[in-house]
Amino acid sequence: MPKYFAKVSDEHVEHIREYIKRFTAHPFAGTPTGDVLADATSSEGKMIRPRLLMMVSEYGTCRRDVQERLYKLGAIVEMTHLASLIHDDIVDDAPFRRGKPSVQHKYGKSAAVYAGDFLMSRISYYLMLEGQNRSGMILSKAVEEMCAGEIGQAMCRYQEDVTIRQYLQNIHGKTVALFMACCRIGAMESGCSEKTITQLESFGECLGYMFQLRDDLLDFTTEQTVSGKNAHQDFREGIYTLPVLLAQKKPGGMEALHPFMEKSAAGTLTGRDICEMEGLVAELGGMTETWDLIHTYQKQAEMLLEALPSREVSSSLRKLIGKLGAV
Amino acid sequence: MPKYFAKVSDEHVEHIREYIKRFTAHPFAGTPTGDVLADATSSEGKMIRPRLLMMVSEYGTCRRDVQERLYKLGAIVEMTHLASLIHDDIVDDAPFRRGKPSVQHKYGKSAAVYAGDFLMSRISYYLMLEGQNRSGMILSKAVEEMCAGEIGQAMCRYQEDVTIRQYLQNIHGKTVALFMACCRIGAMESGCSEKTITQLESFGECLGYMFQLRDDLLDFTTEQTVSGKNAHQDFREGIYTLPVLLAQKKPGGMEALHPFMEKSAAGTLTGRDICEMEGLVAELGGMTETWDLIHTYQKQAEMLLEALPSREVSSSLRKLIGKLGAV
Repeated sequence: MPKYFAKVSDEHVEHIREYIKRFTAHPFAGTPTGDVLADATSSEGKMIRPRLLMMVSEYGTCRRDVQERLYKLGAIVEMTHLASLIHDDIVDDAPFRRGKPSVQHKYGKSAAVYAGDFLMSRISYYLMLEGQNRSGMILSKAVEEMCAGEIGQAMCRYQEDVTIRQYLQNIHGKTVALFMACCRIGAMESGCSEKTITQLESFGECLGYMFQLRDDLLDFTTEQTVSGKNAHQDFREGIYTLPVLLAQKKPGGMEALHPFMEKSAAGTLTGRDICEMEGLVAELGGMTETWDLIHTYQKQAEMLLEALPSREVSSSLRKLIGKLGAV
Repeated sequence: MPKYFAKVSDEHVEHIREYIKRFTAHPFAGTPTGDVLADATSSEGKMIRPRLLMMVSEYGTCRRDVQERLYKLGAIVEMTHLASLIHDDIVDDAPFRRGKPSVQHKYGKSAAVYAGDFLMSRISYYLMLEGQNRSGMILSKAVEEMCAGEIGQAMCRYQEDVTIRQYLQNIHGKTVALFMACCRIGAMESGCSEKTITQLESFGECLGYMFQLRDDLLDFTTEQTVSGKNAHQDFREGIYTLPVLLAQKKPGGMEALHPFMEKSAAGTLTGRDICEMEGLVAELGGMTETWDLIHTYQKQAEMLLEALPSREVSSSLRKLIGKLGAV
């Protein structure tokens, strides 16, 4: 995935990394959990969520006064994301994460459970120590939505009658909620007006959808070498993403895709099946229409930016959504 | 296990249960996670930790003024305990919990991960909503210790050279830390002096050790029918508890127990082996000396109670430690 956020808000990232280091200092050296935490926190994550939080805070009136507070919150949203990745790997039994062996695969369930729980306890601790209750409550609600999204997705696995509405609900929980929380927190803490906060939160919503839809498309088309995992991992695991669901809703789509879904559930998909399925979905317009939805969110995000007061950061945000919307 | 806390602080329990119900109301009905949450929150748990919190608060000067606040905190410590049980079951792969099939066994890893995470997000949310930052920070630190204890225990599994010090550290994290947190929170929130808070926290420490040591002894001797799990489950899983460790430290103990530990690691223990091992540990004094340690903590707890100002609740607490110390 291209570095959408590269060079944007780079000057803040080092500060945020410092806080992550401080907030996650732990007594588990030499244990699998210690290794998990070292892995998770040292990985060259793109820091997308804290970067977004910092960028959005440029719309506020008191941004400079609350700089350190924002860095700390940036660290905490990234820790939230890390905790969710670690716990997701338990559920998925995924062998890879970010191109490296997954925590769960490498260190076992126990290490993954407690590394995630440890991060969550530190998040709570520092939010309360810093008196960041308002932002903390927004974040807790986002975590709750993340649970709901993951559960919704688990319930839909291998179900051939998943609706597009259900799919969108699931990715809203899994991904979009935390993007929205980052925007709301960045805007609120930097002193934006209630109207601007709501607009920026909606901007985060568009961005979150674009991000996840792109990610789903990426899984649908990319080779192992680029994403670090096999292409079509979702389909293999019975997670039918938008391209598949859109194709399935076309005349004849249901019948055409059924044999592949049946094989996926039975675990008997071959490489050839995957190629055929991909061809079929493309032919039925599943991929183009997913791009259409990405572009709908892009337009919406652009309109929201137009309506916001102009700031130096506005052009960076415009570029960012441009990159996310580029085919 | 006898109902140590029965009738003590019963009048509060209904209020606390109401708050648990309110704080855990969820949108997951009809999903495995919803079932897990229903199971966990409806189970007739003994509510030991919130009861302890309420009892300890009787030493405070402003207890009546903060009654509702205490109920809410009681609900939150019980939710913390529930979340830890749910996540522990993932790690243990335990087929039973409280005599019923475990969450993990019945509903799978996914439901257990997200039910635990959901409870943790609600705990954070309500702590911050209610501005319970001081108590929340104590609780977060206890959760961190719980992670450390579980990790320590995992590291010690099937290790024949576990020291008594390591064992005590592990149970401190696993169990004692949350008992201490309940006492500190109950004392602090009800307006006790710093000295009384510290004394009550130490009382909680003694109680926590007594509780866990008794639990370990129970696993060491009881039949399936009473505890709802096979006796000697710990030994079978390579968790060598105090009776074993004490016996092992006796002259000839190491050599005598080695074959059984070896079989435990290899998974080849027979019912007869278990009987022999139990006989051996009893003969070497492992059980009596575990009782001795329980009684040491009992005496310490009694001395702490003596030193505290006299309250109506004092005699209940004395009875409680009497029951925990009764062979």
